[in-house]
Amino acid sequence: MRRGLFVGRFQPPHLGHLHAIKQALEECDELIIVIGSSQYSHTFENPFTAGERFEMIRLMLRDGGVDLSKVIIIPVPDVGEHSLWVSRIESYCPRFDVVYTNNPLVQRLFKEAGYEVREPKLYRRDVEMGTAIRKRIVEGDLWEDFVSRSVAEYLKKSGGVQRLKEIFGKSDRS
Amino acid sequence: MRRGLFVGRFQPPHLGHLHAIKQALEECDELIIVIGSSQYSHTFENPFTAGERFEMIRLMLRDGGVDLSKVIIIPVPDVGEHSLWVSRIESYCPRFDVVYTNNPLVQRLFKEAGYEVREPKLYRRDVEMGTAIRKRIVEGDLWEDFVSRSVAEYLKKSGGVQRLKEIFGKSDRS
Amino acid sequence: MRRGLFVGRFQPPHLGHLHAIKQALEECDELIIVIGSSQYSHTFENPFTAGERFEMIRLMLRDGGVDLSKVIIIPVPDVGEHSLWVSRIESYCPRFDVVYTNNPLVQRLFKEAGYEVREPKLYRRDVEMGTAIRKRIVEGDLWEDFVSRSVAEYLKKSGGVQRLKEIFGKSDRS
Amino acid sequence: MRRGLFVGRFQPPHLGHLHAIKQALEECDELIIVIGSSQYSHTFENPFTAGERFEMIRLMLRDGGVDLSKVIIIPVPDVGEHSLWVSRIESYCPRFDVVYTNNPLVQRLFKEAGYEVREPKLYRRDVEMGTAIRKRIVEGDLWEDFVSRSVAEYLKKSGGVQRLKEIFGKSDRS
Amino acid sequence: MRRGLFVGRFQPPHLGHLHAIKQALEECDELIIVIGSSQYSHTFENPFTAGERFEMIRLMLRDGGVDLSKVIIIPVPDVGEHSLWVSRIESYCPRFDVVYTNNPLVQRLFKEAGYEVREPKLYRRDVEMGTAIRKRIVEGDLWEDFVSRSVAEYLKKSGGVQRLKEIFGKSDRS
Amino acid sequence: MRRGLFVGRFQPPHLGHLHAIKQALEECDELIIVIGSSQYSHTFENPFTAGERFEMIRLMLRDGGVDLSKVIIIPVPDVGEHSLWVSRIESYCPRFDVVYTNNPLVQRLFKEAGYEVREPKLYRRDVEMGTAIRKRIVEGDLWEDFVSRSVAEYLKKSGGVQRLKEIFGKSDRS
Repeated sequence: MRRGLFVGRFQPPHLGHLHAIKQALEECDELIIVIGSSQYSHTFENPFTAGERFEMIRLMLRDGGVDLSKVIIIPVPDVGEHSLWVSRIESYCPRFDVVYTNNPLVQRLFKEAGYEVREPKLYRRDVEMGTAIRKRIVEGDLWEDFVSRSVAEYLKKSGGVQRLKEIFGKSDRS
Repeated sequence: MRRGLFVGRFQPPHLGHLHAIKQALEECDELIIVIGSSQYSHTFENPFTAGERFEMIRLMLRDGGVDLSKVIIIPVPDVGEHSLWVSRIESYCPRFDVVYTNNPLVQRLFKEAGYEVREPKLYRRDVEMGTAIRKRIVEGDLWEDFVSRSVAEYLKKSGGVQRLKEIFGKSDRS
Repeated sequence: MRRGLFVGRFQPPHLGHLHAIKQALEECDELIIVIGSSQYSHTFENPFTAGERFEMIRLMLRDGGVDLSKVIIIPVPDVGEHSLWVSRIESYCPRFDVVYTNNPLVQRLFKEAGYEVREPKLYRRDVEMGTAIRKRIVEGDLWEDFVSRSVAEYLKKSGGVQRLKEIFGKSDRS
Repeated sequence: MRRGLFVGRFQPPHLGHLHAIKQALEECDELIIVIGSSQYSHTFENPFTAGERFEMIRLMLRDGGVDLSKVIIIPVPDVGEHSLWVSRIESYCPRFDVVYTNNPLVQRLFKEAGYEVREPKLYRRDVEMGTAIRKRIVEGDLWEDFVSRSVAEYLKKSGGVQRLKEIFGKSDRS
Repeated sequence: MRRGLFVGRFQPPHLGHLHAIKQALEECDELIIVIGSSQYSHTFENPFTAGERFEMIRLMLRDGGVDLSKVIIIPVPDVGEHSLWVSRIESYCPRFDVVYTNNPLVQRLFKEAGYEVREPKLYRRDVEMGTAIRKRIVEGDLWEDFVSRSVAEYLKKSGGVQRLKEIFGKSDRS
Repeated sequence: MRRGLFVGRFQPPHLGHLHAIKQALEECDELIIVIGSSQYSHTFENPFTAGERFEMIRLMLRDGGVDLSKVIIIPVPDVGEHSLWVSRIESYCPRFDVVYTNNPLVQRLFKEAGYEVREPKLYRRDVEMGTAIRKRIVEGDLWEDFVSRSVAEYLKKSGGVQRLKEIFGKSDRS
């Protein structure tokens, strides 16, 4: 059995993530989805808790018709020292064979540790979709098209949209 | 939808855990299984990594005929300050309604935070089955009856049994 | 008895703080004053130690004629994860009933935890008085009017002014 | 002005503490009372939060007729490395001149840092009164005579006694 | 015997460091070279691990004809709280008498702790040589002239140059 | 060039360490000596600071006629999670080829990471010489025979012996 690993912060989970996950699942029997920086929330970079992101990822995968039994979702906290991060991932996750990521740092760290790394093709050539979505939410622009339907609903009902606006609408985004 | 939360260290997952999880699932639509102290491994109290425990829990649930689509497994690292621990759990997990645990400290912390807490009936009246299993592995006694079949196989094949023996067979259990 | 909570970093304590504390004390029997980010010092954002800030707050309250027996001052270190911060405050402080703050993040965190939050009216409409004072000290502009008389004296005698100039006069403010 | 420093964990504050504090106040104009290990709670060694301990110390000092305006109470979290601990205390507290303690480690650390250290005379020759009180509470023995009247009341009303019994009555004290 | 202390991050070790170290060794019998921020790597500010920096410092000192038996190299991790940092250095290093540094913060911290601090004369008036080198490596400009010959070789052979380019060539330098 | 790694806590450095280091140096061109648990001091397990241990190791190696130019001494702080520890060592140290240790946990961790591990022959069959020395110092028994001459002198002159007696002579060894 071949298992892949996909790492993201999912702030929030968006169609770019879904696109990459589907590509990875075409080549693997199972895919571990790591929710990175899991300990953070209530910042502009990381507004949503790991629990909220977990819930939204499951909604997105269902919307996208992904077979949930082939997916393992694991929140992993940052360790604060890049040289320890691959070991942290290995410790929190079941064994995996290949890493899917477009992030240059994540690519480099896994390569230095001897892993095979593959780059999913980008969705709409958009490298910073998460940041774009958060900015749009704060500024009151349209953002719903970048996420799946149930994720948009969740963000509105759960208070996530209001949290971003309240904290960052008044002050600087820092 | 009613969601329960069950917390354990799963060092290793054993039949007592399976018994309690099945009870909880009779009362809930979904159950979050928290792998506590997720950052630790290679000690007598916590010999296995969160990733190894994750893999073994899935094997145990399959052995036990539990519907995996009703279960959410989440490793959560200890925060080192009990007064912060319930908030840590709330941050890492999707929303939950009721907590299942036999641990007096966990009971107390969730009660102080206002949660409903239920005690699963113990399996074979055994309160310290995990400790017993680890001692038996180190001392070369029989331990396979306390875990499900696939977990026993995994522990042997993955090197878990050997790890416990090598580290704690020669020296004190500290 | 009704107890309020007021959170600030007090870098340094200034007339805006005094103004807000007096408002809060009109509505409460006792006020807990939390010195936030208590572990930091010697940075531009947090130049003074918690001990120095503690001493200056007492001087400012005496200058302002505040009854010290109605005030409880407690330094609380940042926890680094916003989702744990309210629990950290609850753990370090005696029980409190209402939170006074103009900070959007602090407001949001206490609201999500179920607390009543009130906004003191701003003094001279100045939202960033602490930053302004620190900049003026580094650049050699007048700053004494923004703090009470004894705080100005303390900052000069204790070496606080010199520390800010020495560390940040030569280099970038980072 | 001469300022003393007295360090304790206050689990709970007892008559030995009161006795030592009164002795120190005979020699000093002001006394800083440090609540050590402030981040811990819900363990047998440290059952009560810093906030609960803060509240009980104030009750005890009032019971004992101590002039509260001469006392500064400051919770200080352990730093986990003894070589940094005196700097941590210096950072959290206003300047002090002399340290009062019977603890050999605290004595040694402050001596190595160049401080004058004085040993208060013990109350009833009892070196481990805090541990004795916690054991008695768990086992249901009489403990009220070791603390001041209002502290005993607080422990009963606030749920502190029940917390100790619930967590440690059923299981080992670890 | 007179011992000096020189602190740097050595990202990478460059001719400015060598120049300062030689000056210090003219006044001291032995020099402790602290590799600061030792826990960090794989960032633009701190691309190289403490081990890589250790190796490069030794190469640089040999290139520069420095007597290695007069030098003690010690990696020291940041403590995250400036008020504790001098104690951390004292704990990790053998006793020292005088501190050599051009960094205003390091100067201030050691002065507040009572140490004699001396400023080495700058090499080519260059205060930010490390940053300049890292930028040049990322952008493909010439950088080899700023480091000693063996350090340049090491950076090329060990993959250090490639790491900087891969991680920061594609994305922002953050 | 072949480089070995030898890990110890060196509390204090003793003749068993010297014996093992000499064996390792017979097989390697250079030996990295890691001072483990470098952040701890002033406890019974770890009474001496990393700086004190560093100084004593150099004295011991000189006493023992070891060529200091073949030895690299590096203090490395514990990371608190065994699964990250080998990566921490790799990050703090120059590249190494083989690990020398008698500690079962260290053996296991390096083996799981793919390293060659060798066991030095024990000196006088003594597995716990460090503990024995510390006990003897506290209890006033003879201990000088277990360390080299200059280490014994250093421990007496530097106050190390007095520290152990003062902290642990009066109270429990915890």
